[in-house]
Amino acid sequence: MVVVMQAGASEGQIQHVIDRLVALGFDIHRSTGASQTVLGAVGVRPDFDTRDVEVLPGVREVVRITQPYKLASRAFRPEGTIVELPRGVRIGGNEIVVAAGPCAVETAEQINLIAERVAQLGARLLRGGAFKPRSSPYSFQGLGEPGLVLLREAADKNGLLVVSEVMDPSQVSLMLPYVDVLQVGARNMQNYHLLRALGQVAKPVLLKRGMSATMEELLLSAEYIMSGGNYNVILCERGIRTFETSTRNTLDIAAIPVIKQLSHLPILADPSHGTGRRDKVSPMARAAVAAGADGLLLEVHNDPEHALSDGAQSLYFDQFAQLMAELRMIAPAVGRCLA
Amino acid sequence: MVVVMQAGASEGQIQHVIDRLVALGFDIHRSTGASQTVLGAVGVRPDFDTRDVEVLPGVREVVRITQPYKLASRAFRPEGTIVELPRGVRIGGNEIVVAAGPCAVETAEQINLIAERVAQLGARLLRGGAFKPRSSPYSFQGLGEPGLVLLREAADKNGLLVVSEVMDPSQVSLMLPYVDVLQVGARNMQNYHLLRALGQVAKPVLLKRGMSATMEELLLSAEYIMSGGNYNVILCERGIRTFETSTRNTLDIAAIPVIKQLSHLPILADPSHGTGRRDKVSPMARAAVAAGADGLLLEVHNDPEHALSDGAQSLYFDQFAQLMAELRMIAPAVGRCLA
Amino acid sequence: MVVVMQAGASEGQIQHVIDRLVALGFDIHRSTGASQTVLGAVGVRPDFDTRDVEVLPGVREVVRITQPYKLASRAFRPEGTIVELPRGVRIGGNEIVVAAGPCAVETAEQINLIAERVAQLGARLLRGGAFKPRSSPYSFQGLGEPGLVLLREAADKNGLLVVSEVMDPSQVSLMLPYVDVLQVGARNMQNYHLLRALGQVAKPVLLKRGMSATMEELLLSAEYIMSGGNYNVILCERGIRTFETSTRNTLDIAAIPVIKQLSHLPILADPSHGTGRRDKVSPMARAAVAAGADGLLLEVHNDPEHALSDGAQSLYFDQFAQLMAELRMIAPAVGRCLA
Amino acid sequence: MVVVMQAGASEGQIQHVIDRLVALGFDIHRSTGASQTVLGAVGVRPDFDTRDVEVLPGVREVVRITQPYKLASRAFRPEGTIVELPRGVRIGGNEIVVAAGPCAVETAEQINLIAERVAQLGARLLRGGAFKPRSSPYSFQGLGEPGLVLLREAADKNGLLVVSEVMDPSQVSLMLPYVDVLQVGARNMQNYHLLRALGQVAKPVLLKRGMSATMEELLLSAEYIMSGGNYNVILCERGIRTFETSTRNTLDIAAIPVIKQLSHLPILADPSHGTGRRDKVSPMARAAVAAGADGLLLEVHNDPEHALSDGAQSLYFDQFAQLMAELRMIAPAVGRCLA
Repeated sequence: MVVVMQAGASEGQIQHVIDRLVALGFDIHRSTGASQTVLGAVGVRPDFDTRDVEVLPGVREVVRITQPYKLASRAFRPEGTIVELPRGVRIGGNEIVVAAGPCAVETAEQINLIAERVAQLGARLLRGGAFKPRSSPYSFQGLGEPGLVLLREAADKNGLLVVSEVMDPSQVSLMLPYVDVLQVGARNMQNYHLLRALGQVAKPVLLKRGMSATMEELLLSAEYIMSGGNYNVILCERGIRTFETSTRNTLDIAAIPVIKQLSHLPILADPSHGTGRRDKVSPMARAAVAAGADGLLLEVHNDPEHALSDGAQSLYFDQFAQLMAELRMIAPAVGRCLA
Repeated sequence: MVVVMQAGASEGQIQHVIDRLVALGFDIHRSTGASQTVLGAVGVRPDFDTRDVEVLPGVREVVRITQPYKLASRAFRPEGTIVELPRGVRIGGNEIVVAAGPCAVETAEQINLIAERVAQLGARLLRGGAFKPRSSPYSFQGLGEPGLVLLREAADKNGLLVVSEVMDPSQVSLMLPYVDVLQVGARNMQNYHLLRALGQVAKPVLLKRGMSATMEELLLSAEYIMSGGNYNVILCERGIRTFETSTRNTLDIAAIPVIKQLSHLPILADPSHGTGRRDKVSPMARAAVAAGADGLLLEVHNDPEHALSDGAQSLYFDQFAQLMAELRMIAPAVGRCLA
Repeated sequence: MVVVMQAGASEGQIQHVIDRLVALGFDIHRSTGASQTVLGAVGVRPDFDTRDVEVLPGVREVVRITQPYKLASRAFRPEGTIVELPRGVRIGGNEIVVAAGPCAVETAEQINLIAERVAQLGARLLRGGAFKPRSSPYSFQGLGEPGLVLLREAADKNGLLVVSEVMDPSQVSLMLPYVDVLQVGARNMQNYHLLRALGQVAKPVLLKRGMSATMEELLLSAEYIMSGGNYNVILCERGIRTFETSTRNTLDIAAIPVIKQLSHLPILADPSHGTGRRDKVSPMARAAVAAGADGLLLEVHNDPEHALSDGAQSLYFDQFAQLMAELRMIAPAVGRCLA
Repeated sequence: MVVVMQAGASEGQIQHVIDRLVALGFDIHRSTGASQTVLGAVGVRPDFDTRDVEVLPGVREVVRITQPYKLASRAFRPEGTIVELPRGVRIGGNEIVVAAGPCAVETAEQINLIAERVAQLGARLLRGGAFKPRSSPYSFQGLGEPGLVLLREAADKNGLLVVSEVMDPSQVSLMLPYVDVLQVGARNMQNYHLLRALGQVAKPVLLKRGMSATMEELLLSAEYIMSGGNYNVILCERGIRTFETSTRNTLDIAAIPVIKQLSHLPILADPSHGTGRRDKVSPMARAAVAAGADGLLLEVHNDPEHALSDGAQSLYFDQFAQLMAELRMIAPAVGRCLA
């Protein structure tokens, strides 16, 4: 930690800061310049709140020099993590992995139709919600466990894996037999009870970035899961909230190369939630792959106009087919391939 | 719902939209202008996703004309809600109510000292966390139930009520004997399992606005609680995330008059989290009261420099005393009083 | 314009709104529903401020149904605009056009070196600032007219065109002999005196989106230029300001397909300013092209470590070479080509 | 400047950074820790771009420890600046100063009526636009010089001073005879030609914060004016752009105490533009004064429903009267008074 004193800080103020830091267990290096004093404090605990020093009299700025996360940082595993899934699917490797499916599981017929089609077109995972977080209490909340049964059957019939959202610690053990990847939604990115529960699980977790979460906060949430022993975390950029309203969210494509630098964890992009409109999904899916994403999470529906939720952002089969063809052309430009 | 067609929309496109809306159970009023057609659709369900119409060919814009929340809207109770608490404390009435205390309960001595002092100076509720949501898994996570015991004892000895944060549905029944108000933190504003659980409870809920939540989303989260039967919801503005970094969050003071117009629910402000720095808390507390807040949530500590969490934003006793004196001068300007 | 009255609006309030609208020259269609009244107002002036109606008693919401811009809207020229430049360069056509060069012209040697190299690698325009908008008054402010002379010479020697920034109406006539495209920087997007001056000019204008400008505001600024008679406007996405600080700005890639839908004008992306860091420029350049951008504006420098401004976001020659090769692989996926 | 190297930075990388910094004229202090090396660089130029070091291999973070502005910083004049105007009006002193008037000067009758009334109620300055920056080229653009004549006459007749907006360097000399304070609008906060021109003027400048400007950028724009010799700069908070749309902008009240700490310059608030709606202006005006603002800029109109611009955010006379009465009650709570 580096503490920058104000230009006019008195010797008494400087000494007070030093005394505080020593009492907190830091070793102090003092550097006195012509106009300003700078203190280097060595030995900071990962959870130290730098504001405690910032508010002391005479302090201008405090800079943390260690990252607050360890297990999620690139330094922990410089070569990068590949999350190994059944059927030989590997996220973070050479292949760009696509998870596709409806927002919510609705009927056996619907999910089977979709699974068959997305599998033919190159998807590796089937996505679909059985428990739905909805901003209105009056909206469709998902089929629950029967939805998971349908999802699993449709996936198995078509050689796909299953990813589905878990909303509460109480759902974890119920879901485990049905899914290959447990998804944490953006609204739950800082639901610490849920993250701790997922740290105890032996299956990979897909962790979506919260709508106003920084990169550091996303990685700290990954750290919650990893500190419990579950290192198979897959990150996902799904759009942040900004002043711009012409898309539902602003898909922060730059988060992809930024995360690649800060962390060893693989990262997907979700252009369906990131834009909220079907006609913007394909351009943003292409952009994410061109920027280096390890895969995509895409909403695809057999009949988007009659979907029970998020139909507006679900692709038609032929749109999905065309997108997959385009992605196959783009992948080699980033040294990757697509199924 | 009003559907505005594009200037050049074809008759076929218009008819397709009408057919879709009729199939969804709407009555349609068509208005054909010189350059544009506008459709009025009557009978919208509260959970209808207007994007389903927005993505149809030829549609320029769709405007929902009913609010998606009912119980939380001002129209539901135009005269405004007063939440009645024990000891005659009323939130939303003539008196501006102050809840003060540490970020986290640390020891019996600490919480007793603080409770005594803030009670003397005019606080009505004692705040303090026993379960702490922390962005780092390595930070102090609160004392748990023993902290609630200490909090209750300190409050009772000093004629105060207790407000404390609940993080998970599994904590609700445990907390009920100890607290008068259950607080939902900003990170959990859209934890729907928690909101539903609180709808079943016979105690008031203090619902904090999420860091990137709009007014509508805040009121929809209140609706979740109210739709379960618990109408005693107190809202709280605690700062939103913006590009500005000189404060930890941007306390959106204008949310106070906006909420007063949209909803009948009382609203507090939390300038401690809203600024993140002790030296900015008092100006923003004064501003919130001057703008019409029904009360304040304030972090006050006997020894902020050694607080286990959020010390940087906790007021010293003498700062709190001065602030209360200032607020007593401001309250009459908005037709209110202070204890 | 559609005026939605509140659920409980009185007949008197409704009549007052109707009277106001009629006085303003609107034709009114009234639609009275079970719970709410909706008024359709036909004949709105493009500059009508809908807030004038919003604040009337009993009004819940007002929706403009006509776009405030005309000449910039897609409807004005549905087939799309191609801006024709000398040497057969066409922006908005089949070819993705790259403008590359240093942030600022520094010396004859520097600009010649850069021009030669970027021309070899496929750039069509040479970019470089002679007048630099700098947030600090103490920073390097550009060479002025001598810089323009150097820029023109370097471009001509290498078969390139010139694009350079104009900061003030007083510079327009000075710059015209030296440049092929006049650039308006993000900070000047709403400098209306400058926009009006450029409406009188017979050369294309490259208009950058302001850091907090919506799509509508960007198109209204284009409208300023076009309403003066200059229809050759090229838009440019260069990043917006959000809460995220790991990149200098958040490059809003989705703006590219959004603009393509709303307007007929071509749009470039500037990943150099959009990220602020050299190591993030190439991924974002690829993303922009994959999303459908008509071209790129890129900072390239022969010696970025010693550049007088923005060296940190300037590509080395070999990075630029590799990027161009990658873009040539991506272009066919969006039906385009690259020089 | 403090340069924090990555945990695993090699000795070669560290030496490369040191060599670069020495070549740039810095003195270097090296501090080698168990896991990380930190370099202190003394002698930074005010315009140094820290990103130039940030992008060097092995660097984790660079922290500037000197503020990039000098004249605008609190350290330059710790006791605070009072801007002295004619008629004994002092901005930044004990009295809270109110500037009131219409958005735009429309007619002699209008401006005289308003001037008379706001003077009676306690305003010290008459505000009103003669040159109007409008986002649409088709909107009313102001009366120009004849408007200034009317403004001056109305002010003189009623013992008021005049503040009016200047949009372009070419207007400065024209405006000087008519105004006491030259206002720079939010859209022009980084119009550096204009700022430089105002540095040469012998009259105070009211500088509004840009919609997405940080505190540092606002103070750097003040520095542009002050570095030209004009130290009489008055800052103004007028709302920033955020995701929240229930108000036109988010009035960042916390900017008031933040600026008071960083700078010696006085600061006003403009709740009319900060909210965009008349019914939110008074609560936010009270909040700004309670937070420590040195004054207010308020839109007041004799007939807001027929105003040519911004009528929706203009107060009626009786609203203004009531607000002034409320402010007189609040001012003593912050040790101030009101005329």
